[in-house]
Amino acid sequence: KWLAEVKNKLNLPVITEITDEKYIDIFLNNIDIIQIGSRNMQNFPLLTTCAKTKKPIMLKRHFGCSLRDWLGAAEYILYHGNPNVVLCERGITVPHTHQLTSRFIVDLEAVLAAKEWSHLPVIVDPSHATFNRAYVTPVARAAMAIGADGIILDVHPVPEQAAVDPLQSLGFDDFDKLMKQLTSIASVMEIDM
Amino acid sequence: KWLAEVKNKLNLPVITEITDEKYIDIFLNNIDIIQIGSRNMQNFPLLTTCAKTKKPIMLKRHFGCSLRDWLGAAEYILYHGNPNVVLCERGITVPHTHQLTSRFIVDLEAVLAAKEWSHLPVIVDPSHATFNRAYVTPVARAAMAIGADGIILDVHPVPEQAAVDPLQSLGFDDFDKLMKQLTSIASVMEIDM
Amino acid sequence: KWLAEVKNKLNLPVITEITDEKYIDIFLNNIDIIQIGSRNMQNFPLLTTCAKTKKPIMLKRHFGCSLRDWLGAAEYILYHGNPNVVLCERGITVPHTHQLTSRFIVDLEAVLAAKEWSHLPVIVDPSHATFNRAYVTPVARAAMAIGADGIILDVHPVPEQAAVDPLQSLGFDDFDKLMKQLTSIASVMEIDM
Amino acid sequence: KWLAEVKNKLNLPVITEITDEKYIDIFLNNIDIIQIGSRNMQNFPLLTTCAKTKKPIMLKRHFGCSLRDWLGAAEYILYHGNPNVVLCERGITVPHTHQLTSRFIVDLEAVLAAKEWSHLPVIVDPSHATFNRAYVTPVARAAMAIGADGIILDVHPVPEQAAVDPLQSLGFDDFDKLMKQLTSIASVMEIDM
Repeated sequence: KWLAEVKNKLNLPVITEITDEKYIDIFLNNIDIIQIGSRNMQNFPLLTTCAKTKKPIMLKRHFGCSLRDWLGAAEYILYHGNPNVVLCERGITVPHTHQLTSRFIVDLEAVLAAKEWSHLPVIVDPSHATFNRAYVTPVARAAMAIGADGIILDVHPVPEQAAVDPLQSLGFDDFDKLMKQLTSIASVMEIDM
Repeated sequence: KWLAEVKNKLNLPVITEITDEKYIDIFLNNIDIIQIGSRNMQNFPLLTTCAKTKKPIMLKRHFGCSLRDWLGAAEYILYHGNPNVVLCERGITVPHTHQLTSRFIVDLEAVLAAKEWSHLPVIVDPSHATFNRAYVTPVARAAMAIGADGIILDVHPVPEQAAVDPLQSLGFDDFDKLMKQLTSIASVMEIDM
Repeated sequence: KWLAEVKNKLNLPVITEITDEKYIDIFLNNIDIIQIGSRNMQNFPLLTTCAKTKKPIMLKRHFGCSLRDWLGAAEYILYHGNPNVVLCERGITVPHTHQLTSRFIVDLEAVLAAKEWSHLPVIVDPSHATFNRAYVTPVARAAMAIGADGIILDVHPVPEQAAVDPLQSLGFDDFDKLMKQLTSIASVMEIDM
Repeated sequence: KWLAEVKNKLNLPVITEITDEKYIDIFLNNIDIIQIGSRNMQNFPLLTTCAKTKKPIMLKRHFGCSLRDWLGAAEYILYHGNPNVVLCERGITVPHTHQLTSRFIVDLEAVLAAKEWSHLPVIVDPSHATFNRAYVTPVARAAMAIGADGIILDVHPVPEQAAVDPLQSLGFDDFDKLMKQLTSIASVMEIDM
């Protein structure tokens, strides 16, 4: 299993999307966090099965669902005995863009609202939300500045050649610059609060 | 005219919303920037009349209009011979909130897109977009971090007693803290770019 | 004034859109109903001036405004002493179509809701809502079947050659067939109610 | 199994929602049509498993998904060898209502568009779309008048006492009247076409 190898090498937590409960047994020993993808946000049998593994679960928000729907799905996992839920905002569809901007709109106020209405950590996924490399860096900075608990990013050695989602991955250089900016914004958040 | 007095005292530019062309003559000498409110974004006779004054115009985006509609309205002012247009994002309506969050969603990616599709400066109005004092500060930080050219804020000595929009104004202390954060984020934007 | 001639010939009420109060004097004697276009729905000075003419006013709903916004604008006309307001639904923008269907979505439930929340008649404009000739006839039938008080249609002798909105006008033959269907649906509405 | 009894008594096709593949074996012999609920529209493992049963599948549209998303999900079933797919429109979320109308907006133009872009039959569910008994009858008439291939309705002997969805079920009397109206509208559709 290459996942185990990757995990040993990187010394980073491994997050894997589970789309079908039949994959849980295969992956469970080698992953640290289960990702529920946006399209499965309300797949309640899958939520129940994943909840029962007791692994931390990152629950992505469906692009057409409200905060209430999202928190309701999270409640479902909590109810089945798993308190380790991370909410992940990854963009919503809106009628106002007509494809002149990115694929979705990142609903950054949902970070504030989700933290006001629940005790769960909230992270943001600028890569899938924008589907546009040029927008990933500024949206990541904005997510940090609004108070997100974390940011999840697509990074690739040669983004243009990525087998999946080549338009949205950052290269290593861009990632380094972004990390510097995010670190500085993190310190800004402490000012006089 | 108290506007003239205020202007002399504050040494700041004065922005006034014009909702009807009959007010232009009254205000013109004492204001620096004409504001077109969101509900008048596509009031084309008003845009034409204001354009012809040659005063700088801040064009607020209608909460139900796309980027294309907004830039089209700006084009209308440019076409009538006035190149001094500032775009102002102040929130859009979306189907996903169901009143658990703020009144509108600030479309921060519109800042990126408007700057990509036009040469105009783009500012953000967190006060009217959120209608919620607790959200104004984080949204202002995010607007700065995404690269907005400016931020317009409601500030009041005693916000709770403001005659207009008391829920969204910042007090002076909050404003001071926010300015420190915004200044630091501004310097973050220069890092290694 | 050709409007007067047209009016004498057709023996039909004449509706004209007023976009600027300076046109009111020119048109007022020759029109029966003032139309406020969707983009002027919240142009309050224009609403006030038109209200004071005492002419009946057809108020089109803005494509990005809620029922509450629309009824609020109608209230504005009523408040200024003009009780003769007709509401006209002409489509809303939604995030779900991605340009595979028509330009806007006709919100037919708004007909039911506007009649429940107000005493005003509500009509539907399938031509501007769909911007697509093939959809005009079925949407008109649906508007009738849901209980609209009227339907406003673009009709042209040679639709493809219409100077304005050539994609949405019906020819005379299609109009005749549609009228037969609408008449029959009108009688269906009486069944056992 | 009471489903088998009901089926024998009623001589009507039985439709049951399948939310988890583990229920398929239990229900399969006693149902005629599998319903995929809106929240499972993009649950691709479930779509695959249901497709392989070769039973006809009614695919409800998610309230936050576009026509493209919906047809993409239907394609998934067709691709797995099951040509018997019925599309069911049951309402979309929009930013324009603010809870003054029904829960969702029925996107009746999606009926036209889905029939233009695919060969599949399209039906409408006024009960779940409106969540409001008073709106079910007019929306059902409109769905018929726009050209839907069928309508699915919640009916109950004593709607107010229904264990599930009591606000949206029709009583038998209302259902009888509606059926008369729908039959007449069906004949209207034949006029001069």
